[in-house]
Amino acid sequence: MFHYTRKAQYHETDQMGVIHHANYIKWMEEARVAFLDALGCGYVDIEREGLGSPVVGISIDYRHPTMFSDEAEIGVRINRYSTRMMEIGYVIRNVTRGTLAAEGVSKHCFLKDGAVVSLKTALPKLDALLSAYLDSDENGNE
Amino acid sequence: MFHYTRKAQYHETDQMGVIHHANYIKWMEEARVAFLDALGCGYVDIEREGLGSPVVGISIDYRHPTMFSDEAEIGVRINRYSTRMMEIGYVIRNVTRGTLAAEGVSKHCFLKDGAVVSLKTALPKLDALLSAYLDSDENGNE
Amino acid sequence: MFHYTRKAQYHETDQMGVIHHANYIKWMEEARVAFLDALGCGYVDIEREGLGSPVVGISIDYRHPTMFSDEAEIGVRINRYSTRMMEIGYVIRNVTRGTLAAEGVSKHCFLKDGAVVSLKTALPKLDALLSAYLDSDENGNE
Amino acid sequence: MFHYTRKAQYHETDQMGVIHHANYIKWMEEARVAFLDALGCGYVDIEREGLGSPVVGISIDYRHPTMFSDEAEIGVRINRYSTRMMEIGYVIRNVTRGTLAAEGVSKHCFLKDGAVVSLKTALPKLDALLSAYLDSDENGNE
Repeated sequence: MFHYTRKAQYHETDQMGVIHHANYIKWMEEARVAFLDALGCGYVDIEREGLGSPVVGISIDYRHPTMFSDEAEIGVRINRYSTRMMEIGYVIRNVTRGTLAAEGVSKHCFLKDGAVVSLKTALPKLDALLSAYLDSDENGNE
Repeated sequence: MFHYTRKAQYHETDQMGVIHHANYIKWMEEARVAFLDALGCGYVDIEREGLGSPVVGISIDYRHPTMFSDEAEIGVRINRYSTRMMEIGYVIRNVTRGTLAAEGVSKHCFLKDGAVVSLKTALPKLDALLSAYLDSDENGNE
Repeated sequence: MFHYTRKAQYHETDQMGVIHHANYIKWMEEARVAFLDALGCGYVDIEREGLGSPVVGISIDYRHPTMFSDEAEIGVRINRYSTRMMEIGYVIRNVTRGTLAAEGVSKHCFLKDGAVVSLKTALPKLDALLSAYLDSDENGNE
Repeated sequence: MFHYTRKAQYHETDQMGVIHHANYIKWMEEARVAFLDALGCGYVDIEREGLGSPVVGISIDYRHPTMFSDEAEIGVRINRYSTRMMEIGYVIRNVTRGTLAAEGVSKHCFLKDGAVVSLKTALPKLDALLSAYLDSDENGNE
């Protein structure tokens, strides 16, 4: 699993005194962006090719609250990939409190000129990286 | 179904030229807040009793994009309720474009002094309203 | 003055129990968008002409807090306009509490293909509307 | 000057293809929080004493846009401090593009139980740190 770390910010709190739940969706995106960068084909590369990778579904289970100033570590991995659809899994740990904050999944397709496309033809470099990632024992069987 | 309407704002767009997906989570909250107000026991009432109603899970499927200045109509209803857990369903329609924007679900528990409580004892007024809502043919069988 | 009304949302609160100050910048934008729509040449029209109207400066004085569920009324007017620069003034009132929430100003230029342009040549329709607005006793001398 | 660094995130972009201007207010807060932590009396310490430090004014001049994935370095320093009022200055540099992104100022008072208080009596530790900071040639005359 790739790990992305960030601090919970004051502007992310709500009047319950915890990080508002909508921010976790942003944290998942931040971790996904850093993960694809580390994989070797980031959002900047994807968009340079005229492609988009919109979110088509999100699900998240909130376990324990995150408070202002807590350090969150977001683990990211590709759960599934099939040239037209990518599913990414997230485990958000609260490092400061030693708790599991949340677990989530996001699903993505790939768009070019408004149409869903296959990465195999539209961006073979990323297709190869994602396939290799899933083939690797180290990542796939973790 | 209760309906809450709001306009998609410029500050909610992203560089794909659409409303960023994290904002739908906020729209669902806005609609839920308006719905509970209309039901007769809103967030202000809930928190006045020392209760919180944190989100324990969210899932959302994104169907068609919403653009800046589009009018979104968020339909809300209670899917399930069991004194300790409430599940709310959402249908987000893009009125301007005549499309289905997204469908989602949020799950909530009820907290008092950090412990999960039953609404039946902690806030009987809301318990009665939610039970009556689900018993009503008009709403429950829609 | 043009008036735009909106409710303070739960997701806009912070752990001080008030609306987080960064949200007022978004409220000012929402009011500005509605105001230009009402004037007859909105953001959608501006961007359709290949123009942008970026914010080049913001200042805001916070007077009294806004709380969740409070109704905010944002008064908007054009303070100054000179074909290349527009200054907009805002008065945010908390209708629920009868208080002045904040007063602010935003300054804007007009951009086309990355260069600052004069509205007189780039978008004469908006230039005429802004000039007429400032000439009008009703608005200019309010 | 203290420096805080962070990456511009995808969820912070808008449909002009740049970081939306409201996010700079959040970046200023993040930098201020990190700065007070480094000074030795952070927001967590301030709030533990029952104090708040609300923003009473913000002004910001936007110079050059920040794009998704750009690295922003926010320089922070105390401009003025007078036991009841603190003014903080910010210089936001776009490290990736070598440009000045924005310059800003935030003003703060100190609140306890809803009343404005003097830090000298309410939180002498922070009062001493702020006074020492301004007395220091290294910082004050920079």
